[in-house]
Amino acid sequence: MEYSVIAIGDELLIGQVTDTNSGWIARRLTPAGWRQRSVRVIGDSAEAIRGALDASLAEADVVLMTGGLGPTRDDITKQVLCDYFGGELRLDEAVARNVEAIFAKRGLTMNAPTASQAMVPTSCRVIQNHVGTAPIMWFERDGKVVVSMPGVPFEMQAAMDDSVVAELLRRFPSREAIEHRTLVVAGVAESALSLRLEEFEDLLPAEVHLAYLPDQGLIRLRLSGESPDRAWLTATMERLVCKLDELLGDAIVSHADVPLPQLLGELLAERGLTLATAESCTGGNIAHEITAIAGSSRYFTGGVVAYSNAVKRGVLGVDGDVLEAHGAVSGPVVEAMARGVRRRLGTDCAIATSGIAGPGGAVPGKPVGTVWIAASVGEKVEAECFHFPGSRERVIYRATLTALVMLIRLLRSEP
Amino acid sequence: MEYSVIAIGDELLIGQVTDTNSGWIARRLTPAGWRQRSVRVIGDSAEAIRGALDASLAEADVVLMTGGLGPTRDDITKQVLCDYFGGELRLDEAVARNVEAIFAKRGLTMNAPTASQAMVPTSCRVIQNHVGTAPIMWFERDGKVVVSMPGVPFEMQAAMDDSVVAELLRRFPSREAIEHRTLVVAGVAESALSLRLEEFEDLLPAEVHLAYLPDQGLIRLRLSGESPDRAWLTATMERLVCKLDELLGDAIVSHADVPLPQLLGELLAERGLTLATAESCTGGNIAHEITAIAGSSRYFTGGVVAYSNAVKRGVLGVDGDVLEAHGAVSGPVVEAMARGVRRRLGTDCAIATSGIAGPGGAVPGKPVGTVWIAASVGEKVEAECFHFPGSRERVIYRATLTALVMLIRLLRSEP
Repeated sequence: MEYSVIAIGDELLIGQVTDTNSGWIARRLTPAGWRQRSVRVIGDSAEAIRGALDASLAEADVVLMTGGLGPTRDDITKQVLCDYFGGELRLDEAVARNVEAIFAKRGLTMNAPTASQAMVPTSCRVIQNHVGTAPIMWFERDGKVVVSMPGVPFEMQAAMDDSVVAELLRRFPSREAIEHRTLVVAGVAESALSLRLEEFEDLLPAEVHLAYLPDQGLIRLRLSGESPDRAWLTATMERLVCKLDELLGDAIVSHADVPLPQLLGELLAERGLTLATAESCTGGNIAHEITAIAGSSRYFTGGVVAYSNAVKRGVLGVDGDVLEAHGAVSGPVVEAMARGVRRRLGTDCAIATSGIAGPGGAVPGKPVGTVWIAASVGEKVEAECFHFPGSRERVIYRATLTALVMLIRLLRSEP
Repeated sequence: MEYSVIAIGDELLIGQVTDTNSGWIARRLTPAGWRQRSVRVIGDSAEAIRGALDASLAEADVVLMTGGLGPTRDDITKQVLCDYFGGELRLDEAVARNVEAIFAKRGLTMNAPTASQAMVPTSCRVIQNHVGTAPIMWFERDGKVVVSMPGVPFEMQAAMDDSVVAELLRRFPSREAIEHRTLVVAGVAESALSLRLEEFEDLLPAEVHLAYLPDQGLIRLRLSGESPDRAWLTATMERLVCKLDELLGDAIVSHADVPLPQLLGELLAERGLTLATAESCTGGNIAHEITAIAGSSRYFTGGVVAYSNAVKRGVLGVDGDVLEAHGAVSGPVVEAMARGVRRRLGTDCAIATSGIAGPGGAVPGKPVGTVWIAASVGEKVEAECFHFPGSRERVIYRATLTALVMLIRLLRSEP
């Protein structure tokens, strides 16, 4: 089944808000064999909305729209849809009750703009929005479906998971099987990787497609297959993944498209190990990435953001002489930070970082992007120096990923 | 000047990668008076690329394309552009030298897929990519311009900043002035806000438009104005912002569309104050947000991620009896955490959080989303309990923003 997405909102076109809804929708519908054909990001303009509807309906049987449904005047999607599909706006009692309930739950008093949320086109079927005031609208014409949902991500997500996904799958049952397998590779350039996989790509069956997704020093290799024969497809995908294992060996960090912090968490939880972090240049981002995973309190004890040298000394117990002799951005210091936080917080494992995220702070011999990282399991500590290119944000993010990869590899190298 | 963006890559349509390039481009070109008409996100398909080019060229004079230029086989944009604009692929010596230089700098050995990056359509003008191997291609037809850039964000950004923005502005000098002003509002529902601004909106001049951008408990109010008369526009925008100040008063957290951590950083730096964080449920995200700002080491000393109660006691000095009596998610505990980290790290200010980010961890009387936050300036400590809706990620993010707002307001309330 093919569908297209229309994301509506002036804020998207001046870069104030990023459309993450279309990606979220894809992650929900792709496993069901649905294919996203395109995303059109447009402003709050009747002409643009009509044009995007025409183009989307010409290429796909389902069009999912997000945004432009707020109670304020700049949001015109509902009126445009009413004009497009015919009929008129009429008060829907069930929506009115829902809006009141939402407001009561939030302890807010009803007002006219919000009350207008209960006006819906007579040409649509309404799906209640249980977490917000904008109703979800389902239109049908010539066997094609258009669903209009709020743009606020958590409202759109609730609408999809509560009813829209299920209703779409019921309305358009699928026959073709689609499978994706993703391997995460670290430490190889994209071009070198494609060279190593040249013969593999030549021998791929026509039903399977290989894509390279480079992302901040990691490359995700994605195999996508499509066939009416699900059993054949699954067996073929398995065989191809085994072949990639042979060809790439240790370069593969993960066989699942799960975030690295989750992968690390699974490794730690399996072995019953605990972890602490000691971060300077990454400023808490490693702890944040780790604790973004539900259940991380099973293995993550805590961390210290040792931004100043005083904290490195006072809280982590890094020797002042070592700091003096080698500088904060050095192997001996990150090793001492890893040991210090492990001891201080009483954990089995530790990660430590110290570097120059930029744009300022460079010193002779240590340009912006220089980052020392240590990973420690028990008494074993490994430290390495990296030079990451790009902006402050990029250096912090790459240092975070690299630190996670280092600890994952160190844990795997342990018996 | 109006332009459209085409973002190319199968990975975008299965939600594996989010298009952030179009937003970045908008943030660069909007201040120059350029208006982004639409973004088309499409897959690596010749038909889709041709269709998007046709539609984009029909609506705008400039089309900026990102992605689909990698050295691997799934990337076909260059060939499609060559077919679209005519001519043939030919080896470009300057690009070949650039590719070699990039590889030498990265310590990699040249290979065939990468060498093919030097093949470019004879119908385009090449702009060198100084940070990657894919050349930037500039096409012209019937007075319209199409620029194809790499999809890797930092390569696209370097291309834009090094040459593409300047060349576009030279090629299409602008006459119309466009201005945006953004106010950040906290603690008011969108509908209540729109009610308070009803008369204000009625009296807006036709050249100015007001948009509400709700985001995780904050609302950005964006005034956008457009006029050939720059002086009039600037004066009008100033007058309207003053009017909003009158109408909204304390609800306004910021008069600039700067991230809250930057706003807090500026306040701290102005007053010469230092800050430490003590985070439980936010898991390092507050420290991360603060240190994402360049120069934050001037005021940010460090933080403790006290995920386990042992760390709350051992490192932050929270009394075991207080933890026992009130539970970790409580006012007395976040107050003790704020005091503890301020004392331990020797700072003027502190932020502390303790809550239940979910999905597990709820206890009777403390559902998922319950978060206690403390903000402290000197001896003054304020603590408050919040209930945030939504996913773990959302609870962490809203708690982070709310903590920053609390400290900003506390700082402002001090003489």
